[in-house]
Amino acid sequence: MHANDDDDRMTRWEQRTEVPLALASLLFLGAYAVHVLAPALPRPWHVLCLAFLIATWTAFAVDYAARWLLSGQGARFPRSHRMDALVLLLPLLRPLRVVHVYEAVQRRRERPGLDLYVRVMTYAGLSALLIGFAGSLAVYQQEHTAPGGTIRSFGDAVWWSCATLTTVGYGDVSPVTPVGRLVAAGLMGCGLALLGAVTGSFSSWLLRGFAREDGTRPPGDSPGAS
Amino acid sequence: MHANDDDDRMTRWEQRTEVPLALASLLFLGAYAVHVLAPALPRPWHVLCLAFLIATWTAFAVDYAARWLLSGQGARFPRSHRMDALVLLLPLLRPLRVVHVYEAVQRRRERPGLDLYVRVMTYAGLSALLIGFAGSLAVYQQEHTAPGGTIRSFGDAVWWSCATLTTVGYGDVSPVTPVGRLVAAGLMGCGLALLGAVTGSFSSWLLRGFAREDGTRPPGDSPGAS
Amino acid sequence: MHANDDDDRMTRWEQRTEVPLALASLLFLGAYAVHVLAPALPRPWHVLCLAFLIATWTAFAVDYAARWLLSGQGARFPRSHRMDALVLLLPLLRPLRVVHVYEAVQRRRERPGLDLYVRVMTYAGLSALLIGFAGSLAVYQQEHTAPGGTIRSFGDAVWWSCATLTTVGYGDVSPVTPVGRLVAAGLMGCGLALLGAVTGSFSSWLLRGFAREDGTRPPGDSPGAS
Amino acid sequence: MHANDDDDRMTRWEQRTEVPLALASLLFLGAYAVHVLAPALPRPWHVLCLAFLIATWTAFAVDYAARWLLSGQGARFPRSHRMDALVLLLPLLRPLRVVHVYEAVQRRRERPGLDLYVRVMTYAGLSALLIGFAGSLAVYQQEHTAPGGTIRSFGDAVWWSCATLTTVGYGDVSPVTPVGRLVAAGLMGCGLALLGAVTGSFSSWLLRGFAREDGTRPPGDSPGAS
Repeated sequence: MHANDDDDRMTRWEQRTEVPLALASLLFLGAYAVHVLAPALPRPWHVLCLAFLIATWTAFAVDYAARWLLSGQGARFPRSHRMDALVLLLPLLRPLRVVHVYEAVQRRRERPGLDLYVRVMTYAGLSALLIGFAGSLAVYQQEHTAPGGTIRSFGDAVWWSCATLTTVGYGDVSPVTPVGRLVAAGLMGCGLALLGAVTGSFSSWLLRGFAREDGTRPPGDSPGAS
Repeated sequence: MHANDDDDRMTRWEQRTEVPLALASLLFLGAYAVHVLAPALPRPWHVLCLAFLIATWTAFAVDYAARWLLSGQGARFPRSHRMDALVLLLPLLRPLRVVHVYEAVQRRRERPGLDLYVRVMTYAGLSALLIGFAGSLAVYQQEHTAPGGTIRSFGDAVWWSCATLTTVGYGDVSPVTPVGRLVAAGLMGCGLALLGAVTGSFSSWLLRGFAREDGTRPPGDSPGAS
Repeated sequence: MHANDDDDRMTRWEQRTEVPLALASLLFLGAYAVHVLAPALPRPWHVLCLAFLIATWTAFAVDYAARWLLSGQGARFPRSHRMDALVLLLPLLRPLRVVHVYEAVQRRRERPGLDLYVRVMTYAGLSALLIGFAGSLAVYQQEHTAPGGTIRSFGDAVWWSCATLTTVGYGDVSPVTPVGRLVAAGLMGCGLALLGAVTGSFSSWLLRGFAREDGTRPPGDSPGAS
Repeated sequence: MHANDDDDRMTRWEQRTEVPLALASLLFLGAYAVHVLAPALPRPWHVLCLAFLIATWTAFAVDYAARWLLSGQGARFPRSHRMDALVLLLPLLRPLRVVHVYEAVQRRRERPGLDLYVRVMTYAGLSALLIGFAGSLAVYQQEHTAPGGTIRSFGDAVWWSCATLTTVGYGDVSPVTPVGRLVAAGLMGCGLALLGAVTGSFSSWLLRGFAREDGTRPPGDSPGAS
């Protein structure tokens, strides 16, 4: 997640492009949402949306190429930046970077030692929201015209996303097209990770609580015991 | 969850209003339950229930306003007390405060160092019960007359709540109305948190067990190893 | 889980009754299984099964009463032994004690410091097996003659138990009767606990792995860091 | 997982057979996949596949026997190598060894102290992929001709595997045959373990993060607190 700070130009590039690219990724998501959810818009609007989509995606590709060049890592770059390549191929995941930026801004404004739990939960929550919205859009686009499909409205798609991300999985509505199911598999994986983040936060919060309780005991009574 | 103790008047207010407000929130839940589950009651009873609902909600609003004033934090109060604002908007979540009071009372009566696991599990269990009951009521109210719905009786709603809170999610009955699904999404989130609490408790219990086992080894044999 | 060792007579009673009661609880489960799964048996066999059920349950009740008396705790005993009261009311949970005995025997035979992970996983696995079997029996008995039910054979009931205990919850078969759903809610809770045990084991296993890795670093390099 | 290093011949045997057996297990999976997914192939191909299956399985059996002999443990070997016996009986699980080899190779090539999280996540991810593929094949073979079944194509089987391994469990498609449900129960267990691995990784990653944060505080401020 964190860029290596060994290269000054790389760091400067990332600092300068971080906010514009985050905005671009939100624009990407917005343009995609308008394109998918408002089919009744006149044709020029859809052309505009597609132009936005292509422009922002090009910006992502340029950023990836620039960072590859600046890193000076050559062929090792794609290996050590797999997440970036994934985000380049699936630009709907790109808005996750916004979470990163938001979190960094928050950290600067508030006290630097902001509780790690709050950060992780904020990160997980915002990521779940963005991934859920992007996943709903993608699944809705694939499914709402599929024969025999059960996801007929965008509301259905959002409802299905919630049930998937929390790993509840009612199955009252579920994708039937191959692409829809591929997106669904991705969402399931995100749900697993979300569950892991929530559980891990609770677990470590509890362990910290225990450690603090132990701290009230007289020292020497196995203070490193938890 | 814990009020800042920096302000004496704030602390006094909270100590005095804690128990009455907890009782008021149970009254709120009870009045809502009677209103929803007993439609055959004569009309005056329903008017009484609604009066109770409005009166208790007003009490919550007054409490929120009083604490805002007493805190002396001005515009920062809503930001640092988001949970309170949420509970004010969704008063069905308010009975969770009862869990807080019950837990505080228990702690005073029994030994203060009551095992944190027991406290967390009690908290999680009682919260799940209250949220499940409130969620069942809200979903039942929305769904039992919805065309094409599958939640027909309050028993169905409770059954659906159990399957949702444990993230099992059979989907044999599931909400179909937008409001019902919104409540369901909230319940799913609670289920995720419940899972996190249970898992985290187990995880930290195990780690404490390991630490205790390590403690029986001769010291110097990496006592801080867990 | 562990009996207080403060009372010698209590400890002796528990040591002497542990194995017979564990066998009795397995007999209970076996007699219940025969009664439920073999309705075609001639009537005397069913009478015998019921006699077994009543006899073993009486033994459990006698054991509970004896331990209450021997504990010398008076009215505090039910509060501090809630699990025992639960097991007395739901004797199908009683075989879980077998797991306890099995685990204790294993510990005596093998090295005492048997890995806690292995113990927890064995405990969780055997408990899941026993609870799943008992739950399948109870649900099958309730559901296989219910109008509109989907659990028609014991195989269906076992399949449903697996999906419930792992919180997968397909919902292709699911209970429809109130008692069946009550049992199901219990199984869901056990599934949640099972998930917690598995996750907690993994989590602590990983943390121990990290601690061991850190142990290879030079000491003084934050040895208590994990 | 790790072989005991106490016996040189055993270690040498394992070092020499590790890679060939891993390849053999992939061949096994491949031959099984061809056999199941290409029923239209001419008969000689299927005979070849079966020959491959038998040959590789024989190799696994020979390896098991050789290691039993070389271990010099006699009757205790099956008890202490239960995983190996399981893999021998269910050779579709054998490719999991490939994950082991891949991970070992990676460790040799890269820095030895490769982050344990990355290793666990890689291990869990690859295992989920292989188990999901093998499970999909087995379930597809059982179900696609079953009367009343819902898993009709291999795509359905893969979709069902994803929903099962992540414990989402939509239930829109689900196995109906006894063998298919047995495989499904195994997949559910793997899903539980996968969830445990993901959650445990997150949890320990967070705890390490906390420990590192605490490390930046002045020493003496409860450095062993996490």
